Amino acid sequence: MWKPDRSAPMPLYRQIVEHIERGITYAQLPPGSVLPSERKLAEQLGVNRSTVVQAYEELRASGLVESTVGSGTRVSLTKWGVSPLHTPNWRLYTEGGTFLPNLPFMRRIREVTRYDASIINMASGELSSDLFPNRIVSRILREESFDEHLGYDDPQGYLPLRQALVNKLLQDQNLITSETSMLITSGSQQSLYLITQCLLSPGDAVAIEDPSYTYSLPMFQSAGLRIFRLPVHADGIDPEDIITLYKNHRIRMVFLNPNYQNPTGTTLSDVKKKRVLAIAADLRIPIVEDDPFSLTDFRGSIPTSLKSLDKDGIVLYIGSLSKTAASGLRIGWLVAPQSVVDRLSDARQQMDFGLSIIAQWTAERLLASEEFDKHIKELRQSLQQKQLLMLEALTHTLQDRISFVPPVGGLNVWCKINHAIDDGKLLEEAIKRGVVFVPGSVYGSEPGHVRLSYAKPRPEEIAIGISAFAEALERS
Amino acid sequence: MWKPDRSAPMPLYRQIVEHIERGITYAQLPPGSVLPSERKLAEQLGVNRSTVVQAYEELRASGLVESTVGSGTRVSLTKWGVSPLHTPNWRLYTEGGTFLPNLPFMRRIREVTRYDASIINMASGELSSDLFPNRIVSRILREESFDEHLGYDDPQGYLPLRQALVNKLLQDQNLITSETSMLITSGSQQSLYLITQCLLSPGDAVAIEDPSYTYSLPMFQSAGLRIFRLPVHADGIDPEDIITLYKNHRIRMVFLNPNYQNPTGTTLSDVKKKRVLAIAADLRIPIVEDDPFSLTDFRGSIPTSLKSLDKDGIVLYIGSLSKTAASGLRIGWLVAPQSVVDRLSDARQQMDFGLSIIAQWTAERLLASEEFDKHIKELRQSLQQKQLLMLEALTHTLQDRISFVPPVGGLNVWCKINHAIDDGKLLEEAIKRGVVFVPGSVYGSEPGHVRLSYAKPRPEEIAIGISAFAEALERS
Ligand SMILES: Cc1ncc(COP(=O)(O)O)c(C=O)c1O
Ligand SMILES: Cc1ncc(COP(=O)(O)O)c(C=O)c1O
Repeated sequence: MWKPDRSAPMPLYRQIVEHIERGITYAQLPPGSVLPSERKLAEQLGVNRSTVVQAYEELRASGLVESTVGSGTRVSLTKWGVSPLHTPNWRLYTEGGTFLPNLPFMRRIREVTRYDASIINMASGELSSDLFPNRIVSRILREESFDEHLGYDDPQGYLPLRQALVNKLLQDQNLITSETSMLITSGSQQSLYLITQCLLSPGDAVAIEDPSYTYSLPMFQSAGLRIFRLPVHADGIDPEDIITLYKNHRIRMVFLNPNYQNPTGTTLSDVKKKRVLAIAADLRIPIVEDDPFSLTDFRGSIPTSLKSLDKDGIVLYIGSLSKTAASGLRIGWLVAPQSVVDRLSDARQQMDFGLSIIAQWTAERLLASEEFDKHIKELRQSLQQKQLLMLEALTHTLQDRISFVPPVGGLNVWCKINHAIDDGKLLEEAIKRGVVFVPGSVYGSEPGHVRLSYAKPRPEEIAIGISAFAEALERS
Repeated sequence: MWKPDRSAPMPLYRQIVEHIERGITYAQLPPGSVLPSERKLAEQLGVNRSTVVQAYEELRASGLVESTVGSGTRVSLTKWGVSPLHTPNWRLYTEGGTFLPNLPFMRRIREVTRYDASIINMASGELSSDLFPNRIVSRILREESFDEHLGYDDPQGYLPLRQALVNKLLQDQNLITSETSMLITSGSQQSLYLITQCLLSPGDAVAIEDPSYTYSLPMFQSAGLRIFRLPVHADGIDPEDIITLYKNHRIRMVFLNPNYQNPTGTTLSDVKKKRVLAIAADLRIPIVEDDPFSLTDFRGSIPTSLKSLDKDGIVLYIGSLSKTAASGLRIGWLVAPQSVVDRLSDARQQMDFGLSIIAQWTAERLLASEEFDKHIKELRQSLQQKQLLMLEALTHTLQDRISFVPPVGGLNVWCKINHAIDDGKLLEEAIKRGVVFVPGSVYGSEPGHVRLSYAKPRPEEIAIGISAFAEALERS
């Protein structure tokens, strides 16, 4: 990201003018392009808003950009005041396509955290850097000599990685599978994407938990799916609700995150899990089990997966290294009947031709290393400690203004706010005070919740973050 | 991939029976699953067909599988002869979705090359292993200590990699851009996918070259696009044809591979390139420039890119490391107006949350290393030599039965067969003789061509491969 150089003799506003002029000259900002608002650009560049105002004024004076009330500042269509209209109407293109943009709240959060490293981030569903296995990864790269084939890989993913995962799943989770039933994906996200794109058709009805992470994914709407909700209670969904949704809407698939559900933290009991499977078997509808958190269990007792109980080939199981090692590895896996794996890997070839062998090789070495289990143990302890810090701060500052049930795993505390609030206002007030979280409406239909993550902030930031959040709550 | 163990005391057919029983028991092959044909499974496992026949007979005898003429062998719906129907009808799911499967020829080629390493591969568009920069990559991993943030990356991709590419593009191709106008993608493939998914809508008309690589991508049909063709002549497309297609079909985008076009090897002259841009400016339609081969120019004189001539922000430029370094790195880039980059990176977050940082870091180090330019020089020489071997063999064995124009870059020779042939028959005859190529019909509408790639076979395989191909041609 370009930033003005504060030590240069040229005034900041002039540097901004020249930067934008360059963008226009090299067609990075073709005629008609929308420039960021003054507030937003100032935020991005880390300068005063008045500096941006001055830069935009100079650009307007030269005729390069135009401002109109309502539609903001744009690069002039008649560039340099002479040339006729020669550029595709990019706006028309970028507003087309079957792909819906991300939710405004998620975009806002990304924007703020992208340009301001000092903000306390209780919105992100990722681990803090000190919890990543950086030391192990550097050691692997340094010491274990990479000598893999650098060509297009097997469409299902790097075979040794699939084998390592087959072993891990058996060992840790009593989940029996084989490398032919596994597809390596770019995190859970790509598994979900492939399923929604390749196994379902526009107009199909599916059931998802409410609230749920899935609900936050415009991917489901982009695929044209009709979404029906399974309310999540203190002990998770009620399996019988699946029957009702099937009767009323002929749902064709059920998406569940049974262990340390995001965002509520609930875990389905084994009794409920078996009932879910029995119902799905009766109705003959597949269950997608998104299971990124089970290894985070604070006590080290990994909850049962639906897949390990599945004897009929009903469950599509999704795992990921994102929440237990590092999200930047982009390594996830899908365990499914072989015909499903074949179909999805064939489609994935068309999207991106598979994952980088270097990332997959690193993941395989990581899983195979003796240090990995130790890493998981330490991770559990750190997460538990950070959760404790958050619970203490919440109890201390917010007492009976919120309520929550602390989960014994996962990365989040799901808080109910005990008075009516305006999600958007609360978020902006929090941002002003240097903290972000995810408004509950992102995940579901019931108003008045927030998701506070303890995984990303540093321990010493947690109490400060909660205080700032409490103040924001006061104001909204 | 599981294979029977030839040194074990248990007979091979029995091992296959038990392997399939395990698959059924653990629901990897749920009831109703289709098993591979006897021929195909024998090919995959590297055993005689009779061994598979015996295994299937035993499975049928136990009631676990059923065979019917026409629909092949399947896992019984009434598993173990007792349990009722409990499994989703996976066939219905895998045949649904908006995603079309890969072309049958491409699937057949993949299948054959996947299980038979001895086949001479003149079908693959990738380099042979000895041309990959394995030595440099191992050195980088070993010596340059990895210490990057392992969290979710910037949606546009790893900043230092974008910066390195901005420098390279300027240096090598006189293409001026900036890191804010660039998106790192999983090869060219993902750039194309993002463009077809996010900037175009079902029903939109687009123009592509005929023949072209693009034509081989079911991705275009999956996105619901209507495809219109620009015939490729000895000197590439005729720019005026764009006007005709616009008038007749209101095409909304043009896809071109102007340098060492795949499969024909043609390069557009600068005069034609300028005319293409002038026409696109007039009609206000974007050009997608897919440019993976320009660095392979045998003489080291890199052809002009459309993007470097583009002053109006018309061109979406796509590059890749696949054809000049290694396809298994899965690193490509898109250079585009910022609003387009924003839109595509937002959508990509929903598909896969971006690329692995480890792969991107390695690519950045590779581009920055002093050895990279030397690698490219050696690559050019090797490709030229291999092409020469192929041309000699073709002239020697096939003389006037085929005709071709050898390109001075790229990876392929596009051959016209001087008599009527049946694509499918020719391919099967070639496979029987241990060689694969891509039938021309995969790339376009004009019959009677084949694409022979010299990049993947080893030098000593080329003459043998061409002889085998000549024999196959004799028989079809
Ligand atoms: C329940 C759940 N599934 C999937 C994901 C996607 O993660 P990744 O693609 O990094 O594995 C997340 C991330 O927040 C998640 O919480
Ligand atoms: C013209 C062209 N574009 C794109 C690709 C896709 O390659 P990658 O995604 O590996 O960059 C290929 C590969 O054959 C190609 O020939």
